[in-house]
Amino acid sequence: LALCQLDPVVGDLEGNVARVLAALSQAEDAGADLAAFPELVITGYPPEDLLLKSAFVADSRAALDHVARRSGACAAVVGYVDLADPGADRPLANAVALCAQGRVVANTHKQRLPNYAVFDEARWFAPGLGAPELVEVAGVRVGLSVCEDLWSPDGPVGALAAGGAQVVVNVNASPFCIGRQEDRLQVIRQRVAESPCVIAYVNQVGGQDELVFDGGSLVVDATGNVLAEAVRFAEAVLLVDIEVPPSEETPDAPERLPVIRLSTAPRDPDPLDRLPRPTPLSAEGEVYSALVLGTRDYLAKNGFTDVVIGLSGGVDSSLVAVVAVDALGAGHVHGLSMPSRYSSEGSRSDAATLAETLGIDLWTLPIEAGHAALAETLTPILDGPPQGLADENLQSRLRGVLLMAVSNARGWIVLTTGNKSELATGYSTLYGDSAGGFAVLRDVPKTFVYRLCEYRNRCAGRALIPLSVLEKPPSAELRPDQRDDQSLPAYEVLDPILEALVEEDRSLADVVAAGYDPAVVARIARLVDGAEYKRRQSPFGVRITAKAFGKDRRMPVTNHYRDRFPENQAALETLDPDAPRVPAAVATPPGPPT
Amino acid sequence: LALCQLDPVVGDLEGNVARVLAALSQAEDAGADLAAFPELVITGYPPEDLLLKSAFVADSRAALDHVARRSGACAAVVGYVDLADPGADRPLANAVALCAQGRVVANTHKQRLPNYAVFDEARWFAPGLGAPELVEVAGVRVGLSVCEDLWSPDGPVGALAAGGAQVVVNVNASPFCIGRQEDRLQVIRQRVAESPCVIAYVNQVGGQDELVFDGGSLVVDATGNVLAEAVRFAEAVLLVDIEVPPSEETPDAPERLPVIRLSTAPRDPDPLDRLPRPTPLSAEGEVYSALVLGTRDYLAKNGFTDVVIGLSGGVDSSLVAVVAVDALGAGHVHGLSMPSRYSSEGSRSDAATLAETLGIDLWTLPIEAGHAALAETLTPILDGPPQGLADENLQSRLRGVLLMAVSNARGWIVLTTGNKSELATGYSTLYGDSAGGFAVLRDVPKTFVYRLCEYRNRCAGRALIPLSVLEKPPSAELRPDQRDDQSLPAYEVLDPILEALVEEDRSLADVVAAGYDPAVVARIARLVDGAEYKRRQSPFGVRITAKAFGKDRRMPVTNHYRDRFPENQAALETLDPDAPRVPAAVATPPGPPT
Repeated sequence: LALCQLDPVVGDLEGNVARVLAALSQAEDAGADLAAFPELVITGYPPEDLLLKSAFVADSRAALDHVARRSGACAAVVGYVDLADPGADRPLANAVALCAQGRVVANTHKQRLPNYAVFDEARWFAPGLGAPELVEVAGVRVGLSVCEDLWSPDGPVGALAAGGAQVVVNVNASPFCIGRQEDRLQVIRQRVAESPCVIAYVNQVGGQDELVFDGGSLVVDATGNVLAEAVRFAEAVLLVDIEVPPSEETPDAPERLPVIRLSTAPRDPDPLDRLPRPTPLSAEGEVYSALVLGTRDYLAKNGFTDVVIGLSGGVDSSLVAVVAVDALGAGHVHGLSMPSRYSSEGSRSDAATLAETLGIDLWTLPIEAGHAALAETLTPILDGPPQGLADENLQSRLRGVLLMAVSNARGWIVLTTGNKSELATGYSTLYGDSAGGFAVLRDVPKTFVYRLCEYRNRCAGRALIPLSVLEKPPSAELRPDQRDDQSLPAYEVLDPILEALVEEDRSLADVVAAGYDPAVVARIARLVDGAEYKRRQSPFGVRITAKAFGKDRRMPVTNHYRDRFPENQAALETLDPDAPRVPAAVATPPGPPT
Repeated sequence: LALCQLDPVVGDLEGNVARVLAALSQAEDAGADLAAFPELVITGYPPEDLLLKSAFVADSRAALDHVARRSGACAAVVGYVDLADPGADRPLANAVALCAQGRVVANTHKQRLPNYAVFDEARWFAPGLGAPELVEVAGVRVGLSVCEDLWSPDGPVGALAAGGAQVVVNVNASPFCIGRQEDRLQVIRQRVAESPCVIAYVNQVGGQDELVFDGGSLVVDATGNVLAEAVRFAEAVLLVDIEVPPSEETPDAPERLPVIRLSTAPRDPDPLDRLPRPTPLSAEGEVYSALVLGTRDYLAKNGFTDVVIGLSGGVDSSLVAVVAVDALGAGHVHGLSMPSRYSSEGSRSDAATLAETLGIDLWTLPIEAGHAALAETLTPILDGPPQGLADENLQSRLRGVLLMAVSNARGWIVLTTGNKSELATGYSTLYGDSAGGFAVLRDVPKTFVYRLCEYRNRCAGRALIPLSVLEKPPSAELRPDQRDDQSLPAYEVLDPILEALVEEDRSLADVVAAGYDPAVVARIARLVDGAEYKRRQSPFGVRITAKAFGKDRRMPVTNHYRDRFPENQAALETLDPDAPRVPAAVATPPGPPT
């Protein structure tokens, strides 16, 4: 068995076919009887509204046919887009085909379509309704299933196993979030405990916009033992020998499914060494790997070789620089220090130390001249130079303008440095520090930013990120003696409140019951709601939690819900029903006043 | 019958209850037996991921109960969020209740859940499965249905009529796009032709983020005659007498549904005058009304009283200013002229003329000083001042910075002025002219911008928008003698190509077959794909077409599909399957280099 954990590119049909054929040839050379590829590997996942283009669907089916024609003795299990069963309420199906000996031998359509969190599959696909069948490959009865089909006790995987499948291949495009690999193994073990069979779980790997697929493909036997596990966050062809009694020797199951027999004898390769499972990653390790892979893939797949980062000497921009160096190499990372009249000497020297340690170039572009010129320009309309928040934002936006000018002139993409705690509360400047092409830390809470810095320094065995960066109190340095904790609670308090409100959708009462100050919780909830308009205009970045801002959390901007309705029942009772009146009957046609 | 075409606010449970009760009281005072309200009127539509908050769902159900307790002799048909039927695969239902005499008499769950275009209903709701029933109100058998339930020949509306309903109430939150009202009337007429009954179609009105609901509620009799039609783009309570034989006098239908009898006699109001139907709106008229209402509601619902607009003297910013004046009044609209060394005298004087005609204030803030200062700041890193596109974008971003500084200092929201043709092709500067809170013309193609200007001037009977604005060739004025047609095809050519590629998802071959230059079509398709990252960071605006950029069109940013796969089949055939190789078996665990 060969699990081909590939990194396809969405829409790159030719490239994805080439990736599949290369891995299939490799599997065949190694003597595999069956090679399994990820869900929708032909199109890359998720192809989103490309699926509404009939030319794309036709081209992707031609691509699958091409793979089938090239298939030989080693059967290939390949995810692709099929037309739905007749009578379905959507035209397409999320499908998997078993290709061998130059043709499609069998296929099946995904039955359980995720339409929650980041998933929109009911937008494009109809669920599969066809009767399941098995394919006998090298004397072993194999069942086919797709991703979510694995996750429910009464789903297709159980039906295949109960119907006589000895191996169920489950093809996936399962995005990363913290702890996800343990969830997968647990679900696989539940399935084999209910309906014994070998489950071959193959996952996509690589970054696609805000999603990172982490690989970690698995083969688990009927007793729940992990026979093999692929590396995470990298492509791999995982070769494994599985011992299954030939199907003619096993008694017929009570509900035997129809079996398509492939006229292939088991191939006879050299026995494989049983490789150890990869060392499990810590939470920091898996998140750090996700940030590096997500950043590297977004840049590579969109044609960027170099990045430019505003280095303030703070912890966020320092971590982004280190991630960028790990993703691209130091020669491709360019730092801009853009001090103002409020920048501390410590911040400037921290940025310089970081750049020197990482070996990246650092340019210093003071914003004083631009700040003075624009303050003067604005004086007539504002009756004086900008004050307070307007002046703070002006400085931040000037930095955004400089970064974008360098980006335009040099072709380097701007990496933004904001973290999830800032994005949640709106503690950032629209078109200022949020300006850029990719937001590496967008889904990383501030307290986790510190953990990642410490993790990376520990891996390096030295202070890649200067200790002074980790020790000083966070500050935006946009006015004298500014500190984050003048505007926000301490991050140790803020982050758990945000997790409860945003990721868990808990009520204010629930969060207060967990021991937090009601006034603080109410204020944070208001900040989160009020910052939705900023988030809509911010660049995406790597999703690492179970609920990232973005397509994971679709909140209206115009939203008057304040989670305080019960308290206002009394007010409702006293509402005057005669107060607001709308125009009765048909009024004059609308239109502009004339 | 009273159709209460209201403008609820998403999440404003108390306010929406007050709006419903006020209109119900008004209907009751007028002698109505039944008052119908829009889909999900309690929460406002669409509540999106507020539905994932259990506190919100509980609060919204308490709000419905409150309406029910206040209901009396006039039955109220009210859209709300219910818990789904037991065994459903989602916890919630999009429901409608008939409330009368202080309680919920009957309810039903939407069966057809739209999950395409801007709709995501399968994300939150399970389809209704319950057996339909009728309610006898004032001696008339009434059936309940929700929005999409009307649109299919074998859907619930037909089943209700066939089962004995004399009146089917259909509650809606149907967003506007050009020509939508004719579609609705046509579908209603199809339904009553298949299964004769009176259909009372009540729609939401008002703006919610990018959606505008246009009202236009309708009552159509069993022969397809329009008995009444409400005004569009404004709230209304549409009162209509319908003559239905009392249910005891009609023969039993073959498949009679169960009937709940309300012990109410028909009320005996004064007969209503039959009002004429509103004059149908032209395409320009309905779009202009949508822009005014969408803008006014977004600002009002988000607490803005005033707007600031960069007035270049061009056609887009001129139209935005006129829309803003119609939405808010001239005293709440503030213009900024931000000339550069490349601004023509004509543009400056056109902006001044427009401001004077509209009676809005106009400030002149030259960007020369800021431009010079930042060019100087950038000189060391760029080996000279910025050139070409970097310099053009720098000017545009300086204007964005000035607008945002005024916005921050004064609390005026920035209206952006870009149109759909620019947004489609990326002919705009990220954080420059695209910076702002609401993009009025986001979904209006450039050629339609001209039609709207002419329409508005025609309504005014004078040149509100100076004729010189409409006659000069479009230019961004970011370099000497720049004109749009140096970068893009003429808009008369561009806009139909964009409509085919974006709104209709046509293949390049199809578009070329319609008579366009293949090289131009291919270039435009490339521009559209390449601008996706800019669109992701741009503010939303009013949707007026059947496919706006935004949640209507969910394209990946990372997207290598180029609609040319068939031509590359030959290349595929010659691919070397041995070329790219991925690491075999289990590699070392990933992680940063140490």
